[in-house]
Amino acid sequence: MTAHATETDIDRVRQKIESLGFRAHIMPGAQKTAIGITGNPGPIDPAEFEDLPGVAEAIRVSKPYKLVSREVKSEDSIINVRGVPVGGPELVFCGGPCSVESREQILESARAVKAAGGQLLRGGAYKPRTSPYSFQGLGEEGLKLLAEAREATGLGIVTEAIDVETFELVEEYADCVQIGARNMQNFSLLRRAGRSRKPILLKRGMSSTLEEFLMAAEYVLSEGNYQVILCERGVRTFTDHTRNTLDLSVVPAVQGLSHLPIIVDPSHGTGKRDKVHPMALASIAAGASGLLVEVHPTPDRALSDGYQSLYPEQFLEVVKDCRAIAALLAHRRNRQQAYA
Amino acid sequence: MTAHATETDIDRVRQKIESLGFRAHIMPGAQKTAIGITGNPGPIDPAEFEDLPGVAEAIRVSKPYKLVSREVKSEDSIINVRGVPVGGPELVFCGGPCSVESREQILESARAVKAAGGQLLRGGAYKPRTSPYSFQGLGEEGLKLLAEAREATGLGIVTEAIDVETFELVEEYADCVQIGARNMQNFSLLRRAGRSRKPILLKRGMSSTLEEFLMAAEYVLSEGNYQVILCERGVRTFTDHTRNTLDLSVVPAVQGLSHLPIIVDPSHGTGKRDKVHPMALASIAAGASGLLVEVHPTPDRALSDGYQSLYPEQFLEVVKDCRAIAALLAHRRNRQQAYA
Amino acid sequence: MTAHATETDIDRVRQKIESLGFRAHIMPGAQKTAIGITGNPGPIDPAEFEDLPGVAEAIRVSKPYKLVSREVKSEDSIINVRGVPVGGPELVFCGGPCSVESREQILESARAVKAAGGQLLRGGAYKPRTSPYSFQGLGEEGLKLLAEAREATGLGIVTEAIDVETFELVEEYADCVQIGARNMQNFSLLRRAGRSRKPILLKRGMSSTLEEFLMAAEYVLSEGNYQVILCERGVRTFTDHTRNTLDLSVVPAVQGLSHLPIIVDPSHGTGKRDKVHPMALASIAAGASGLLVEVHPTPDRALSDGYQSLYPEQFLEVVKDCRAIAALLAHRRNRQQAYA
Amino acid sequence: MTAHATETDIDRVRQKIESLGFRAHIMPGAQKTAIGITGNPGPIDPAEFEDLPGVAEAIRVSKPYKLVSREVKSEDSIINVRGVPVGGPELVFCGGPCSVESREQILESARAVKAAGGQLLRGGAYKPRTSPYSFQGLGEEGLKLLAEAREATGLGIVTEAIDVETFELVEEYADCVQIGARNMQNFSLLRRAGRSRKPILLKRGMSSTLEEFLMAAEYVLSEGNYQVILCERGVRTFTDHTRNTLDLSVVPAVQGLSHLPIIVDPSHGTGKRDKVHPMALASIAAGASGLLVEVHPTPDRALSDGYQSLYPEQFLEVVKDCRAIAALLAHRRNRQQAYA
Repeated sequence: MTAHATETDIDRVRQKIESLGFRAHIMPGAQKTAIGITGNPGPIDPAEFEDLPGVAEAIRVSKPYKLVSREVKSEDSIINVRGVPVGGPELVFCGGPCSVESREQILESARAVKAAGGQLLRGGAYKPRTSPYSFQGLGEEGLKLLAEAREATGLGIVTEAIDVETFELVEEYADCVQIGARNMQNFSLLRRAGRSRKPILLKRGMSSTLEEFLMAAEYVLSEGNYQVILCERGVRTFTDHTRNTLDLSVVPAVQGLSHLPIIVDPSHGTGKRDKVHPMALASIAAGASGLLVEVHPTPDRALSDGYQSLYPEQFLEVVKDCRAIAALLAHRRNRQQAYA
Repeated sequence: MTAHATETDIDRVRQKIESLGFRAHIMPGAQKTAIGITGNPGPIDPAEFEDLPGVAEAIRVSKPYKLVSREVKSEDSIINVRGVPVGGPELVFCGGPCSVESREQILESARAVKAAGGQLLRGGAYKPRTSPYSFQGLGEEGLKLLAEAREATGLGIVTEAIDVETFELVEEYADCVQIGARNMQNFSLLRRAGRSRKPILLKRGMSSTLEEFLMAAEYVLSEGNYQVILCERGVRTFTDHTRNTLDLSVVPAVQGLSHLPIIVDPSHGTGKRDKVHPMALASIAAGASGLLVEVHPTPDRALSDGYQSLYPEQFLEVVKDCRAIAALLAHRRNRQQAYA
Repeated sequence: MTAHATETDIDRVRQKIESLGFRAHIMPGAQKTAIGITGNPGPIDPAEFEDLPGVAEAIRVSKPYKLVSREVKSEDSIINVRGVPVGGPELVFCGGPCSVESREQILESARAVKAAGGQLLRGGAYKPRTSPYSFQGLGEEGLKLLAEAREATGLGIVTEAIDVETFELVEEYADCVQIGARNMQNFSLLRRAGRSRKPILLKRGMSSTLEEFLMAAEYVLSEGNYQVILCERGVRTFTDHTRNTLDLSVVPAVQGLSHLPIIVDPSHGTGKRDKVHPMALASIAAGASGLLVEVHPTPDRALSDGYQSLYPEQFLEVVKDCRAIAALLAHRRNRQQAYA
Repeated sequence: MTAHATETDIDRVRQKIESLGFRAHIMPGAQKTAIGITGNPGPIDPAEFEDLPGVAEAIRVSKPYKLVSREVKSEDSIINVRGVPVGGPELVFCGGPCSVESREQILESARAVKAAGGQLLRGGAYKPRTSPYSFQGLGEEGLKLLAEAREATGLGIVTEAIDVETFELVEEYADCVQIGARNMQNFSLLRRAGRSRKPILLKRGMSSTLEEFLMAAEYVLSEGNYQVILCERGVRTFTDHTRNTLDLSVVPAVQGLSHLPIIVDPSHGTGKRDKVHPMALASIAAGASGLLVEVHPTPDRALSDGYQSLYPEQFLEVVKDCRAIAALLAHRRNRQQAYA
């Protein structure tokens, strides 16, 4: 749609799409609204729409992913997580422990994240574990403790849903629902996320190509939820000096193809505490919109992933250094534009 | 338990395990019954059991996977799929199309599989597809057509369940429920499979290590379903001459560590029709207990995976050649034992 | 050329090619001779050759590799290693220790290989080792011991050349010169091998694609040595249950694209003694022309790779079982052709 | 050695090492000199050295790599390439075309690199190419043109040696000799590099682990050349959105284990021009000591790698942005230390 398109214009287009048996996806942006069309009743002629008032352009999307594509929506999407914009000019920092373990642990974590300048709190109440005999999370009890931590600090809550059965419960407590790497192609879960009103944080699968990653996001959008944040967390390769190989080049690659924001998880991406700081900085320098970082008040006593969790004071340094880099790059970009 | 242990002996052990707050897993074998113990109420002393009548040995399992391990059960497990034993001396061939597309297609496929000497019919009613816009399977309609094909041919039915919601329906129609590669670490689905009375065919994930593969099976067994068939279907690597890289060395590796049978899917493992025959033979020579093969009456008109589906006459050759190899190897092994 | 082309016909074509400033590559086959053209003086019209006597067909090769391609030579190449044909109907077994360590060790190995029915003896005199501080081979002393073992047993010798400097020496003693996986893209070494009169055994690089593998062979052929045997030895992936991942699907893939024979090294391909037998059988079932296997009289005392070396009696079983499989498959193929 | 150790002290230790039949490796640092011991005449007791004057500490190195290890030399090594220090506080930028193609092209490239603030000029005279029919470089002619470009601009020259035969020639012209990724385990070439007086730029192999990478450097050092610069250039994985997967986490990993400097090549690491800038910034943020970047005056007319070469003005932006990030991080680090 054009920048001046009215609500009526948009509604007229929507009605036309639906009258042809398709589904209309209305995605408002800062400047203009994009409307995606999906569904399969037959061929459709873009020209049919171009004469309608307020329509700027009608294009046939050439990629297998449609709604996530910049062809449908050229402007960056900014996802609002309890008032925190993700994908805008400001970096977002989501910190916290791997699992919620106790009231004290999650409250202390939340306060540390808040004190360091983080805006969102992560913490798993339902944990996907390789072994059936490992700690599987506190479940609803964990969700309640997260809510308490939100109450205490004002931080928005990001927590994982591992199946359709518990999605509703997670969704009720969370400000943003995480879909983990192992579930990136759990299509039923993706569809359920697509029917949620909460933003979704979608982590890249361990052996996912860029196209599969965007197609997974497309599942969510195709069901009507356009609030998706992508997250690179390392892929599985032959290397053994880190737990996974953080593929930072996917950050600019996603940004070229999609309007969705992408953040990076350097904790899972490296699996080693002392690699988190340099790779966090590298992520921001590569253009990521923020970070998902494991922070624990006492990593050595963590029930899971302690060896890759930062101490609160390390997280503080990460936040400060990343913000300094982002400010520098923004400043340089602005100055360049001013001279151009 | 010893080979002479009675029902009463077994029950006494089970009661003792349960009285200590653990869970007993009773896995009968051809010669003797193994009893696994899981649960977490505290340490347990093997010696406590060794004095009970009928107990041969009590050992602490050293691996992270317990019930799938040969330490718990040294004899090969033979899984019965509608009367067809999987993991015994006879090879099992499960053929059929990627997706159930129509009555005619599935009936014709079933007759071809039957005619070629196959014992089981595969065919997807629920399809996990990379794109939300691809054909997603016929759903319950597909299950009914599979049942009709079973009726017509007597073949057992293997079909995939892609989520907990539809599991019950799939389980009702299927003789063996498949968990696909993308769901190998969908732990909720694995737990649900563990509460099923039907055998489970568990495919290896695209970037799954051997340990993760066995741990996924452990999820199913830990819930009480000991009827699990493993399936290698290729892993993701840098190579581009096949769709996936078939890792046949996992066959003897699994057989060394676990009592569960393992079969191979050379269709997904190569992604190319002309590579299926040589890799099928290689799979059997490596020791696999059978094959899962895509067969379609008219591959060029298949709605999915046509390029990797065999023509019925090709499947016939695969079955014959594989049986000949298996007979040869069995003969040589027997002769060797006779001389030893 | 046609099957009836005379020496004069072939020479006429060669002269014409050279007169145009190109290089002619004459590759005789069992039925007919293929002539490849390389060089870069400008475009060339296939039609210019089709009218010459004895020319069956002149085609422009569509692949990046030319001389190794079946487009240039459709018949299988059979490489003669000291009277042992590689790539023909008979399987070839090349066994022996990783490194030549002593007279006793190599003689004992050679006798064991011979006794098991092997035709070629492998053994490294120059070893490419990850560490500069590891045993680097006996050098010329090792070559002399290999020659002595050949004398004693009649086995042809396959040994590795690791650089251009020592190539001439290796070539003098060896019946077939091996280029190792780490040197698959050592182009100077490949060119040197291309100027040798001895057959070359070229191992696939650890992260080599099929195309790169064939291009490496093309380097050798482009210099005039058409006696190249390819060897799959496993590629590097994320898996950890074997040292490398044996990619057997490359066997039929190579056979489809190239006239060169391909054998398999299940010792490096698995890195574990107990996986060698099943993977050897799988290699032959997949269609390989033979095997390269590490055999050591006393593996536990080997200076390198002992854990993956077979005991002589295990090698004997490998040879017997592989021959039985090959005979079976040949028999079935012949019968099929007889009926067709 | 202690910071106050005299030449005489050092020489005394050297003599003692040699008298025991070992080789002494004297590696001076900014503060103190490290002396490595290699060779194999038998066990050696560290205590034997601790009483000598000037000796601070004698330790047994626990890693398989010795001389490259921080255990031997804890201070960062700074490698001097024609007056340009690599590994010190200042970033080093080495730019230039993939291949030297003509006088005009290399002079223009050199001037552009110089104008952008680069200190070193890269350009291949000998090119390792996948195909024997691709442009293989201008050879000595190319080296002479590089020397001319050095004359004209004062830039130091980095160029690749692809074999032992041409090493001497390359070494004569180059200020730093590059060993390419495909040759990372060409051990003869590494040994030859170890006998050179010129610094060596060693690129990580396509499927090299961190340990193999350091062991390759160890080959060079073990021969007496301690001037080695490491370079990450991407590894081979399943991903297809970039030519290789740039593994930036190897930068801090190398820095933790070794005193050698490490730089990054984002051109080969991504294979796409528009990904070079973000990944260059990420490399510096991760702690790399500099960059190796392909720059070409007219990328679209390049004989090789044009699609990944930067335009001169893009290189200028890379240099500026990277320097700004490095300055920022140095400033923050200093301030932190001042407050500590």
